[in-house]
Amino acid sequence: MRKMSDGVEAALHCVLVLASLPTGKVLAGKALSELHGLSESYLLKHLRALVAADVLVAVPGPKGGFRLSRPPQAISLLQVVDAIDGPEPFFACREIRRRGPGKSKDPCVYATDCFIKSRMLKAEQAWRDSLAAQNVADLVEDGRTLIDDHNKAAVASYVENARR
Amino acid sequence: MRKMSDGVEAALHCVLVLASLPTGKVLAGKALSELHGLSESYLLKHLRALVAADVLVAVPGPKGGFRLSRPPQAISLLQVVDAIDGPEPFFACREIRRRGPGKSKDPCVYATDCFIKSRMLKAEQAWRDSLAAQNVADLVEDGRTLIDDHNKAAVASYVENARR
Repeated sequence: MRKMSDGVEAALHCVLVLASLPTGKVLAGKALSELHGLSESYLLKHLRALVAADVLVAVPGPKGGFRLSRPPQAISLLQVVDAIDGPEPFFACREIRRRGPGKSKDPCVYATDCFIKSRMLKAEQAWRDSLAAQNVADLVEDGRTLIDDHNKAAVASYVENARR
Repeated sequence: MRKMSDGVEAALHCVLVLASLPTGKVLAGKALSELHGLSESYLLKHLRALVAADVLVAVPGPKGGFRLSRPPQAISLLQVVDAIDGPEPFFACREIRRRGPGKSKDPCVYATDCFIKSRMLKAEQAWRDSLAAQNVADLVEDGRTLIDDHNKAAVASYVENARR
């Protein structure tokens, strides 16, 4: 059964919280992990992947932490997903076309993708296009209208105390 | 990293071959496995899943085998994919929203999906829509124009000898 890394959910929650920080402020990995009820070591692995993909900036030092690398509307959900899960297709092609009695000895026959793979990748592109058309500012707007007041106040208070 | 079952590729190759059979004819699992250079036990698992999903019909007996359950244009790529991999989303949601200091004691707050999950599922729906809009007749047409003559003749000859 197909599954994405569960780090994708954690990463999306983190970028959403980081989008609420005033300019110049950061949150430490420890604060982000407490806020989401996740282990710090688990979350740091994914935060580092987001830094490597230029979605986050890591500010070093005792007052350091993480912030978004650019405005929320300039970070697509696809960039977050690819940072965690890689850009590889999820369709698994083992080149079955090159097996059995139908296989060709002419390597040029296989210079382009199998048409089955092409059709599967076409569908994946529709998924990627949808993720690319949604960004972190959309999550912020969702949160503004859909998070209940208790949760909103509790998170805002935690972030205000923990930010650096 | 996300991955689909490699059975999806095998299943798509099998439905493509079965689409070439004259009405009333079947191919045995052994023939389908030889034709694709795959082990029979491996392939039978996926062929049975296609039967369970009503994509294929299994004809029992010594002259038995598999055929499509309906015309190629009435079998979408999504039906084949879901038969092998299940209809579950590949976004892994562990309800992170219910953890940490922001969590609510009111269960009604969680009656609807987290908006992060909703946006991820929206993208998956685009993928599903693309697969639903493509069908086995499209693969047949691809094959007609894209498979080289040597391969086409070798497969046709194999199928003509092996069909029942």
